[in-house]
Amino acid sequence: MNSYVFNSIGYVNSPYLKAEGTPIQSVKGSKEQARIIIFDDFIDGLKDLDGFSHLIVLSCLHKAVKSSLHVTPFLDTVPRGIFATRAPSRPNPIGISIVKLISIEKNMLIIEEFDLIDGTPVLDIKPFIPDFDHRENVTVGWYANKKGNAQRTKDDGRFSND
Amino acid sequence: MNSYVFNSIGYVNSPYLKAEGTPIQSVKGSKEQARIIIFDDFIDGLKDLDGFSHLIVLSCLHKAVKSSLHVTPFLDTVPRGIFATRAPSRPNPIGISIVKLISIEKNMLIIEEFDLIDGTPVLDIKPFIPDFDHRENVTVGWYANKKGNAQRTKDDGRFSND
Repeated sequence: MNSYVFNSIGYVNSPYLKAEGTPIQSVKGSKEQARIIIFDDFIDGLKDLDGFSHLIVLSCLHKAVKSSLHVTPFLDTVPRGIFATRAPSRPNPIGISIVKLISIEKNMLIIEEFDLIDGTPVLDIKPFIPDFDHRENVTVGWYANKKGNAQRTKDDGRFSND
Repeated sequence: MNSYVFNSIGYVNSPYLKAEGTPIQSVKGSKEQARIIIFDDFIDGLKDLDGFSHLIVLSCLHKAVKSSLHVTPFLDTVPRGIFATRAPSRPNPIGISIVKLISIEKNMLIIEEFDLIDGTPVLDIKPFIPDFDHRENVTVGWYANKKGNAQRTKDDGRFSND
């Protein structure tokens, strides 16, 4: 086991102030807005990003509590191996959020369709590219009979230290 | 700026021994195989993962050299802001690989369709779920007229310290 240190490149300003009540995944079509504030040292890296409609935001899930390797996900009623879930209480609490980019104003990214809590540290931003990021013929294990529920389910705080 | 420490949960055994010559993205349909070795402490977290056909592997791009915030991506000929590219030389070199899961044997995940170099430290594994991870009506900036090239382009070592 080796350790790796990452420094945040910015943070999220979000209307969701705590885990409880926050969407568990990006809600498609939502017009609610948040901002990603990028630290000055990294602003140059935003060049050319405005041509992309969707971004992959890697974040540190800073409110997630430590948990065991078996968790009951929001969308299920029985414990699952943590790596078979998207729950935030993971050995390394790194989140993936695919968000919609509305505009860039200097060091601020205005976004919609997010599931990010206010103050979340941002580790990386990548452009979402369907050629790279879509897959066909996917099977989804325990999630197969939970389809469609994610868009209306809110976090109930079970993985958070708020 | 805050620092976050993550410990690897495992590592990759791959036929690609260095960056040069490695696919720049997962090659769909490739039958070449690699293994992800999970450290003993985390094996319990693999429960239920075998029902999923595709995994999101978060890794530390340990061979990436530091670079400026403008890089010329493999698929382009002019420098772009690093956050508008998927180049590995990023402020935080965290990689996202969507791979095909073939089987799980104790602490070993046999995978296909990968772009991972031998020895890559693995930070997290999440199930790929199209409901969460697909987007429609996506625009892709500078990449728009490079479509289709990613599947046949190999890394030329420009971001690596091999």
